[in-house]
Parts: sequence; structure tokens; C-alpha cells
Amino acid sequence: MEMTLFWIVPVASILALSFAYFFYKNMVKQDEGTPEMKRIAKHVRDGAKAYLKQQYKVVAWVFLALCILFAWMAYGPGLQNKWVWFAFLTGGFFSGLAGFIGMRTATMASARTANAARESLNSGLKIAFRSGAVMGLVVVGLGLLDISVWFVLLQYAFDSLPVAEKMTVLTTTMLTFGMGASTQALFARVGGGIFTKAADVGADLVGKVEAGIPEDDPRNPATIADNVGDNVGDVAGMGADLYESYCGSILATAALGASAYHLSEQAQFNAVIAPMLIAAVGIILSIVGIFLVRTDENATQNQLLRSLGKGVNFSSVLIAIFSFGIIYLLDMNLWIGGSIVVGLIVGLIIGKSTEYYTSQAYRPTQKIAESAETGPATVVISGIGTGMISTAIPVMAIVVGIMLSFLFASHFSFDNIGLGLYGIGIAAVGMLSTLGITLATDAYGPIADNAGGNAEMSRLGEEVRKRTDALDSLGNTTAATGKGFAIGSAALTGLALLASYIEELKVGLLRLGNEVLVVDGVDIPLHKANFVDFMHYYEVNLMNPKVLVGLFIGSMMAFLFCGLTMNAVGRAAQKMVEEVRRQFKTFPGILKGEQEPDYARCVEISTKGAQVEMIWPSILAIIVPILVGLVLGVSGVMGLLVGGLASGFVLAVFMANAGGAWDNAKKYVEEGNLGGKGSDVHKATVIGDTVGDPFKDTSGPSLNILIKLMSMVSIVMAGVTVAFHLL
Amino acid sequence: MEMTLFWIVPVASILALSFAYFFYKNMVKQDEGTPEMKRIAKHVRDGAKAYLKQQYKVVAWVFLALCILFAWMAYGPGLQNKWVWFAFLTGGFFSGLAGFIGMRTATMASARTANAARESLNSGLKIAFRSGAVMGLVVVGLGLLDISVWFVLLQYAFDSLPVAEKMTVLTTTMLTFGMGASTQALFARVGGGIFTKAADVGADLVGKVEAGIPEDDPRNPATIADNVGDNVGDVAGMGADLYESYCGSILATAALGASAYHLSEQAQFNAVIAPMLIAAVGIILSIVGIFLVRTDENATQNQLLRSLGKGVNFSSVLIAIFSFGIIYLLDMNLWIGGSIVVGLIVGLIIGKSTEYYTSQAYRPTQKIAESAETGPATVVISGIGTGMISTAIPVMAIVVGIMLSFLFASHFSFDNIGLGLYGIGIAAVGMLSTLGITLATDAYGPIADNAGGNAEMSRLGEEVRKRTDALDSLGNTTAATGKGFAIGSAALTGLALLASYIEELKVGLLRLGNEVLVVDGVDIPLHKANFVDFMHYYEVNLMNPKVLVGLFIGSMMAFLFCGLTMNAVGRAAQKMVEEVRRQFKTFPGILKGEQEPDYARCVEISTKGAQVEMIWPSILAIIVPILVGLVLGVSGVMGLLVGGLASGFVLAVFMANAGGAWDNAKKYVEEGNLGGKGSDVHKATVIGDTVGDPFKDTSGPSLNILIKLMSMVSIVMAGVTVAFHLL
Repeated sequence: MEMTLFWIVPVASILALSFAYFFYKNMVKQDEGTPEMKRIAKHVRDGAKAYLKQQYKVVAWVFLALCILFAWMAYGPGLQNKWVWFAFLTGGFFSGLAGFIGMRTATMASARTANAARESLNSGLKIAFRSGAVMGLVVVGLGLLDISVWFVLLQYAFDSLPVAEKMTVLTTTMLTFGMGASTQALFARVGGGIFTKAADVGADLVGKVEAGIPEDDPRNPATIADNVGDNVGDVAGMGADLYESYCGSILATAALGASAYHLSEQAQFNAVIAPMLIAAVGIILSIVGIFLVRTDENATQNQLLRSLGKGVNFSSVLIAIFSFGIIYLLDMNLWIGGSIVVGLIVGLIIGKSTEYYTSQAYRPTQKIAESAETGPATVVISGIGTGMISTAIPVMAIVVGIMLSFLFASHFSFDNIGLGLYGIGIAAVGMLSTLGITLATDAYGPIADNAGGNAEMSRLGEEVRKRTDALDSLGNTTAATGKGFAIGSAALTGLALLASYIEELKVGLLRLGNEVLVVDGVDIPLHKANFVDFMHYYEVNLMNPKVLVGLFIGSMMAFLFCGLTMNAVGRAAQKMVEEVRRQFKTFPGILKGEQEPDYARCVEISTKGAQVEMIWPSILAIIVPILVGLVLGVSGVMGLLVGGLASGFVLAVFMANAGGAWDNAKKYVEEGNLGGKGSDVHKATVIGDTVGDPFKDTSGPSLNILIKLMSMVSIVMAGVTVAFHLL
Repeated sequence: MEMTLFWIVPVASILALSFAYFFYKNMVKQDEGTPEMKRIAKHVRDGAKAYLKQQYKVVAWVFLALCILFAWMAYGPGLQNKWVWFAFLTGGFFSGLAGFIGMRTATMASARTANAARESLNSGLKIAFRSGAVMGLVVVGLGLLDISVWFVLLQYAFDSLPVAEKMTVLTTTMLTFGMGASTQALFARVGGGIFTKAADVGADLVGKVEAGIPEDDPRNPATIADNVGDNVGDVAGMGADLYESYCGSILATAALGASAYHLSEQAQFNAVIAPMLIAAVGIILSIVGIFLVRTDENATQNQLLRSLGKGVNFSSVLIAIFSFGIIYLLDMNLWIGGSIVVGLIVGLIIGKSTEYYTSQAYRPTQKIAESAETGPATVVISGIGTGMISTAIPVMAIVVGIMLSFLFASHFSFDNIGLGLYGIGIAAVGMLSTLGITLATDAYGPIADNAGGNAEMSRLGEEVRKRTDALDSLGNTTAATGKGFAIGSAALTGLALLASYIEELKVGLLRLGNEVLVVDGVDIPLHKANFVDFMHYYEVNLMNPKVLVGLFIGSMMAFLFCGLTMNAVGRAAQKMVEEVRRQFKTFPGILKGEQEPDYARCVEISTKGAQVEMIWPSILAIIVPILVGLVLGVSGVMGLLVGGLASGFVLAVFMANAGGAWDNAKKYVEEGNLGGKGSDVHKATVIGDTVGDPFKDTSGPSLNILIKLMSMVSIVMAGVTVAFHLL
């Protein structure tokens, strides 16, 4: 019967893709507006396409290199199974495809949103949001489709294996599909993040500060690049990031389920498909939620926010209820439903705390704005201080979430580690189950932002600007909560991946012909060895210097990765500044509005900058876990992963919140407080905002990738680590 | 024979104190200069005294509260021995005394340094450096004196205990003396750090930026407070920090030695006194080194640096050689001498890497200065980016240092964990063995800085200013390396304390009447239980959710603590700005130079600010480890400590280096590069420098304390944690 239930999974994924197609078609049918609007939209679309093409080229080389490595591992010394390189490729391909579709939709939608806003606020919201929903649904649809296909396929492929091993090998093989998604996400997030902020910072520094022209002014040569950046960073980058979390959490949980329930074949199968089923039902609820989003004309900011919230809340509440049904149908312990609810609530708390610390409606951001009265230095100091303090609530939420989801699933015992870790994985799946709609609200942001840019550049009327501004401002709030959500899910997914690393070790040892683990002088058959046995066998405790050293390196990796991406933005932005200054100087007609600037040149500079600058951080993220594995072995790798996770999570929250708060402190002043636009206070907050740009849109989000990617690399290379140390 | 060797320890400590007294007396004999110079010096001296008095008042209350707690623990349920509260008090008292003497010397020395600089550069250097040496020698002298007295005393006190237990109980009791030093250091570093930067930032924001008057201008009401701040932050605060590391590393290593060598009474005794002997010989070499520091007239910056380096290098090289002699005399494995050398080299590498990343002589800082061409935002971005990248070398140095010092001491086996951890402790002792002279070079900085301020305010001639500037600039370099050194020693000390936490657990279990540890079904007699047994018993492995959760909380604590102190500086500085503005407005005579500003009022504001703002971070640092112990038990506490250590260390390096680099990027521009003083580039770097002030002088250094204090609190409360979870 349970295999019957499983078919809901592919059906839901196809449903998601169908609705995505439906929304896309509906959007394309709309009018794109005046010739001027079309022209600008085309500039942005072409720029985005040009960038993606470059990015995919770099990615293709990396994939080729890794594929060769995996193929060698499989066909050479037999350190991986022969499906891995292909699973890896499909993971990367589908992630890239989702990014491409999402970005194409977004760049098609912006002018149409602006045009619809000429008619009414509601029409604008509908187009922007449903276009965002295309991204959300494509991500979950393609992710779950890939998972279902592999799941069916590998069941046949591994049919000859003994039952005890089959699900373990199957689920750990599928995990390597996540490695493909991780690698793709690395370049999308890091490259996209550098692109977007190089353009944004560069455009602001010359445009706003030096030339004194407003944001999105068509005279600014970097303005198109800035708009392109929103798409490649916030749409394609965010999408790839969450695609990875989505697939990673489902696959890791499946692997943990195969391990925790290995005593009964039926229970094991059910535990493996449980995360998939939760995700599938989440998709269906997300689609319904999307249809609930609509608003009245002349809606206030709060009403707009509430109408988005209605859709998201609907899906969340129902998935919480339905989850218990799924758990019941699968004949599992009903308390596991509690773990799902915990995941949903943790996501909610992190989102709310992000909102509190970054919205100008609350004191923390207002205080940052007030500190601007003594100049930019105090703005930066208080932004950093507040950002650091803002890590407390998300960390406590995750901490309590870990404990509760562990205990719910482990029959409230700290001894049932396998079950407990499965619970943590299930919490991650719960948090991400409604990704279809939450990602829609994220992807909506840059569409609305670009619509505003388009309206500004095509010089549409005041009324239209006001509407697109309202939509844009809503997008800023959802972007902030979306970021918190992306970080939270990365942390939980990271933990689940960490645990499934042990599963991969087990498979690696089996493949090398080991059958027992000798722990404290006792022989334990490998398929019976549990997490604690592995911890004892590899001495993964806090008095092992290799673990301690790994923790230090992991913590350092988070900072190093951040520092490299920060400086990358600084350098690329400087090149942009030079180009814009050059154009202004060489062609005086540009500033007078008599001559069109060379937009394409600026897009090219951002593209090149991103391409060059993403190489070092990317190589580091892939190489370091491999090296640590070879030098320090399993205990060092686990130290590395945990160190990177703990530091990286806190650092990511800090950077996202500080950046968001600076952004909105500026907006708070622009709304007329503390002297308003053009005052010294405003100038100080603009500096804070510029500092915050790479914080919130490049370095911070890139940490999500680092956290997951280092685990993925370790998982895929586990066989090599094991073999190397057995030599 | 070995007890005979031990007597070198008290002798060396008395020697240190004698030379400190000798240097002090010599300094006081010098002329303090013109009446104007004396008047200004008195202002600073009075301000510093007033601040210290306030700080000691707060500290007294905290000590009283903790003493009552410890007394209750000892005399009530018997969770600690009855010496602890008294040991705690003496630790705090001697630390406070060292701070007081150091600061009094520094404030006496600044005018005399300026006055001597009227005569020659060499005279100025000699007075400033030897006054700094007073601090250095008082810290090591009082520290080691306290340790020797307790060591002798407790040997009699615990004479009735069985041999196997005696040294364990003795050394763990002495550790609580470190808790006193930790608590004192907490307030000295945090309070002093907030004081100094509130004054500095406040003075700069109104003075330099708004009123356009130079630094150290006597018309600026906050200028005395700024000079006071250098003394309370960089002399008393730094001294207390390193006093704690010094005592903490010696005591923790002694405790680890008692454990690792418990099989032979003689070997155990030798292992316990080895760190003390190394420190004692280090003192003697430091004194000789201090006498080597002298320079030619008209020395260049490099020659000045080399003359300081000569003293430090002499002591370091000789201690490395002598250490092998000590190890030989104590009949220990000679490879342990290697651990000492490792500690010295790691300290050196961290210092050099700090210099590379923060000195304007190298590219990283110059690049930050160049980024100022596009305004303050890019200065801040590139400072943060570079600061983050700069964590890589120190982390790798510590990582390699941990591994090597572990392996040297453990006969190159990862299985001899007890011996290996002892090696890590010995490395920390090695790094700190020459503290007498390295701290002298640190404390020299603020004295030279104040001498410059005094010369400026008393309007001494151009020639004198040039000399004091040279001395000051030298101080900036030593301050940066000193900071790196303080962080590095805190990390190693933190690791040694972490390991000795296990020893304290053992004593706690014994005290509660336990005699065996049941590990994996096997009974292990407690005094035979090793580190691995404890790790297994408490399941301190990376798949235990309590450990993982502890790691997250530890990581978060580092950020939270930083954020609180950053915001504290922001708030206190703003109050300072308001006061200075008020004085300028109410008394227009001040800016014309016709009226003396109310310096005392500004000192008071900084004092109050520091007093109020240090409360929250301090309470957190003490309470959180206790709470984690009660809720999560031993495994949670160890997670917390390691998380705090790994994140805190990296964060501290980042903050110190970013702050130092911004400071020197500004100096690089002021030296005439990129447009020089007064240009837009200069203004942008001034903003970077102001942001960096709390980075490098408040939040960054405070993390050293957090790392050690959380361990100390856990150690002292170990009995409570154990008892609570046995209930």
C-alpha cells in the first residue's frame, strides 16, 4: 500500500510544474506596456541571459572536472557506486534549469507588473506574485520530480542487494544528487551575489553620491546592471540555494530514516518516503495558498503584507495538520508529527525575529537611524552591534527546535540517537514543506523591485510609481524574512546532512569489504552499528585534538569565505565605479539625458567581476573538506562541518540582519524622519546601506551554501576519506 | 630535589616585583616638566583613579556575591572545598592590585616621557618602556607569587589526602584562584574597553569631524577622558587580561600534569611544577631582556622597532633553550620542550600575521586606504573583508600548534590524550613565559600615546612632538602584535582550561562519594578514568544533540557579547558627543582657547557609561555557563565552551585586525598618500578608523575574557552541574 502512497510524490511535482506553466503563460499574455518599457525590459532580460550564460559556462567546467573525479572513484578503486556521477549531473542540471526558468519569468514579468500597476495595485500584485510563484513551483516541482525518478529507478537498480543494505545504499546514492544541486547553488549564490552587489554598490556610489541622480535613473549606465543583479542574485541565486536545501533535507532525512528504522523492512520504507510525502502534500497546499493571495485596491502596506501572509499561513497551518495524517497513514509514531510542527514554528520565529530586527517599524532599526545623527561611523557601529545581538533569538529558536524535534522523534530519550536525528531531519523538511509559496513571496521581491525600476526609467506617472513603490516595499519585508528562512533551513539541513555523513561512512566501509566495527574491543556488525558506535570508533569527541582542530578550521572557513566575497564585491564595485565615471566623462550627453549610456558594458563588467571573483571562494569550499578528510580523517571532518555550521549560521544571521537593518534605517529616514531625504542624517544612512549591501546579499547568503556544500562534499568523498585512512 | 627547584618560582616572582619597584622609583625621580605638563598629567591621573575606584566598587559587589555562593557551596552541600572562596578572592585581589600599580605607573610616566623626549629620543624611549615594564613585571610577579604561596600552603592543607588524589585536588583548587583573576579581568577589559572607546569616539566625532580641531587639542573637553581611557583600557585592561591568561595557563597545565602523570608520585609532582618553573625562568630572562632595550638618537622607526625586538627576541630564544634544561632536570620526556617552542612560535606567527594585515607598510592596509577613493562605505567593506580573511593564518597557526604540541608531549600518539593535552597547556605556558617583557612592550604603547597627548596639550615644540610621535607610532605596532598575542594565548589557555574541566568533574564526583565511572557497562575506578572514559560516559560526541546545541549557543555567545559591547560604546559615545556639544555651545570661550573645558565631566560620563554598560555582558558571561550546565549537563557545557572558543577566537582576530588596519589606513593617508590629511580620502579613512575603535579596543579584546571566563565558571561550578544531574 505504501508504494501506492508514494505515487502522490511524482503527481504533486508534475502538478507544481503544470501550475508554474499555467502562471507563466498567463503572465506572458499580458501587455508589456509602452515601447520604452519594452526596451528597458529587454535590456535587463538580455543582460541576465548574458550573465547566466557565462555562469553556466564556468559551472560546466567544474561539473566536468567533478564528474571525471566521481567516475574515477566509481570505476577505478571503487570508492563510490557507478550511479553517482550521473545523479550528480542531474542534480546540477535541474537546479540550473530551475534558475533559468525562474529568472526568465522574472525578467518577463517586471515590465508587465509595472504596466499592470498603471491599471491597479491589485493587478500589479497579482502578476508579480504569480510570476514569483513560477519560481517557487518550478523549484519544488523539479526537485521532487528528480527525487521520485531516482527513487523508482534505483529501487530496480539495487534490487539484488540484501534488504538490510538496499535502502541504505539507495538513499545515500540519492544524496549525491544533492551534491550537484550544491555545486550549482554555490556558483549561483556566490556569483550572483557578487554580480548584484557590484552593480548596486557601483551604481549608488557614482550615481547617488557623486552625480546626485536618483536610484534607477536611466542616465546611470549601471542601472540596468543593477536590475539584472536583482534577478541573478535574488531570483536565480536564492532559488538555487533553497532548491539545494529542499532536496538536501528530503534526501538526508530519507537516509536517516533508512538507518533509524532498519530493523523492519516496511517501517524502513515508510520512513524513507515520509519526507517525500510531506513535501508532496506541501506542494499541493502551496498551490492553493498561491490562489489566496489577492488584495483590495488602495491597500495599505499592512494589508498587502496580510494578503501575502494569508496564503503562507494557510499552507503552513494545513501542512501541520496533514502531516499528522501522513505519519498516521505510514504507521509511524505520531509524535514525529510534532517534529514537523517544530520545524514550521522555528521557521516562523526566525522570520519574525528577522522582521523585528530589520523593519523600520521597530526600535532596533530606528535606533540605528538615530545613531546617524553623529555620522556614518556610529551608523556602522550600531548596525554591527545590533546585527550581532540579533543572532540570539534565531540561535535559541534553532537550539530549542533541535532539542524538541529530536525528543519528539526519539520517544523522549537521548539514547535513541538515530530516531532523534531523523526527527531533526523531519523538522527541516517541515520547515521547507511550503517552499512553493514561501519562495514565491521571495521571488516576488525582485520582480516588484524591477517593476519599480522600469516605471522610473520609462518615466511613468506619479500614481504608478506610488503603486510600484508599495509593491517594492512589501518585497523588502518578504526578502528579509525569506533570508532568515533560507538561513534557518540551511542550518537544519546542514545538521541532517552531518548525520547522514555517518550513513555514507557505513556504506563506504561496506564497499571496502569491512563487515564489523571494533569499538572498545567489541566487534559490532556494520549494519547494526549505530551513531554512538561510530562516534566511539572514530573518537569524534571534544577531547580529540583532531575534532578541536576541525572545529577551529570550520569556524575560520565561515569567516574566510565571507571575507573573500566581501572583498570581491568591493573590487568589482570599484571597477564599476571607474566605468561609470568614464562614461560620464567621455560622453557628457549622458548626464544631460541626450545620449543613452552603454548599459551592456556595465553588465559585462559585473559579469566578468563575478566570474573571476567566485573562483577562489568556490575552490576553497570544495577543496578544504577533502583536504581535512585526507589529513585529519573522519573526526577532523566532523569537527570541520560542525564548526562551519555553528559559526556559519550565527555569522549568516548577523550579516543578513545588519544589512537589512541598515537598508531600512535609510528608508526610515527617507520616509521623512530625522531630517528626511538629503539631510546629513540621510547621507550617513546611505553609507550604512551601502556597507550592508554585500552583507545581506552576497556574503551572508553565501554562507548558507558553504554550510551545506561542505557537508555534501564530505558525504560524496566519504569513501575516499575512509579508504585513505585504511591504507 | 625537585621541591628545591620549586623555590626558584617564588624567588623569581620576588625578583620581578623588586625590579618593578626599582623601575618605578627611577621613573618617579625624573622631572615631570613644565607646570602645564604637570597639570595635564594630574588631570589624567585623577581621572584614571576616579574610574578605577568606580570599577573596583562594582567588582567588589560581584566578588561578594560570588564569595557567598562559593562559601555556600563549600559549607552547605559540600560541592566545593572550603579554600575556594578564599583562593578566588586572592586571585581577584592580586589582579586588581597589578592593574592599579600598572596604571598608576603609566599615568605618572607620561609627562615624564614627554619631558625626557625634550632631551632626547632615547631618554623618552627608556622612561616609557621601563614604565611599561613595571606593568609587565608586576603582572608576572604577583601572578607567580600568588601561585607559589598557594602551592606551598595547600600542600600542607591536603597532606592528609591519599597520594593519588592529593595533587589532583590541590591543582584543581588552585584553578579557582584563576576564577578570581577572570572575574576581575572581565570588568577591567569590558569596562575599560567601553570607557576608552566612548571617550575616543566621542572626542573624535565632535572634535575632529564637527569642530575641526586636531586630536589631543586641549580645547576638546573629551581629550583628557580619551587619555584616561588609554590607561584604563590598554594598560589596566590588557594587564588583567594577560594576568588571567598567565595564571590560567600555568594552573590548568599543572592540573593536566597531575592527571597525566598520576601513576608516579615523583613524576606527577614534576609535571605540576614544570609550568611554574618555565614561567619563573621566563621572568628572569624577561628582566635581562628589558635592560637590552635602548636606541640611538635619531633612530628610524625601524631601528626603534628593532631595539624593542632585540629584548623580546633575546628572552624568547633563551627561554626556548632553557626550557629543555628544565625538562631535563625534571626528568621528563625531552620532546615536551618541543611543545614549549611550538607555543613561542605560534605566538610569533600570530604577531607577525597581525603586523602584516594591520601595518601600513603592507598591501592589505594600503588597499583599504585605496578603497577610500570611492568613499567611506568601501573603506568599511574592504576593512571587514580583509579582517575576515586575516583570520586564516592565525587559525592555521593555532591549529598546527595544537597538533604539534599535542604530539610532542604524547610520544606522537593520538591515544595518549592526557599527555597530549598537557602538551597543549605547556605550549600556552611557553607562549606566555616571556610575558614580563612582551607585556612591557604593550603597556609602553599607551604611555607613549599619552606622552604625545601631553606634549600636544602643553604645546611643546615641533622637535619634541616629532619624537613623541615616533614613540607613539612604535606603540601602535606593538599594540597590534600585543593584541594578536593576547588572543592567541587566550585560545591556548582556553583549551587547557577546557581539558582541566574534566579534572574538576573528577574531583566533583569523588567529593559526592562516587568511586567508579560506568562506561559501556564496565566499571572504571574514578582515579583511573581517563579523558576518553569521561567523553564516553558523558557522551561528549558530535552526534549528541546536547553537544551540538551547546556549540550553537557558544558560537552565539561570542557574537552576542560582541554586539552588546559594540552598542555599549555607541551609546556611551553618543552621550559624550552630546556633552562636548553642550560645552562648546554653553561656553564659547572654550573653542577660542580662553576658557578651560570641564574635563572632569567628560571623565565622569565615560565612567558612568562604562559602569552601566558592562553589567549586562558580564552577567551573561557568568550566568550562561551555569544555566547550560544545569539544563544540558556536562556534554552541553563542553559544547558551549568549544563553540565559544572556536567562534570567539576567530571573531576576536577578525575584530582586532580589521580595527588595526583601519587605524593604520588612516595613518597611511595622513603620511601624505592618496591626497593626505584633509582630503576626502582622509575623511573616509577617519570614518573607518572610528568604526574600528570599538572593534579593536572593546569588543575584540573582550572576547579573550569571554573565552576564558566561561571555562573558569564551568570549572568552579562543575560540582554543582554534576550534583544537579545526579539528583
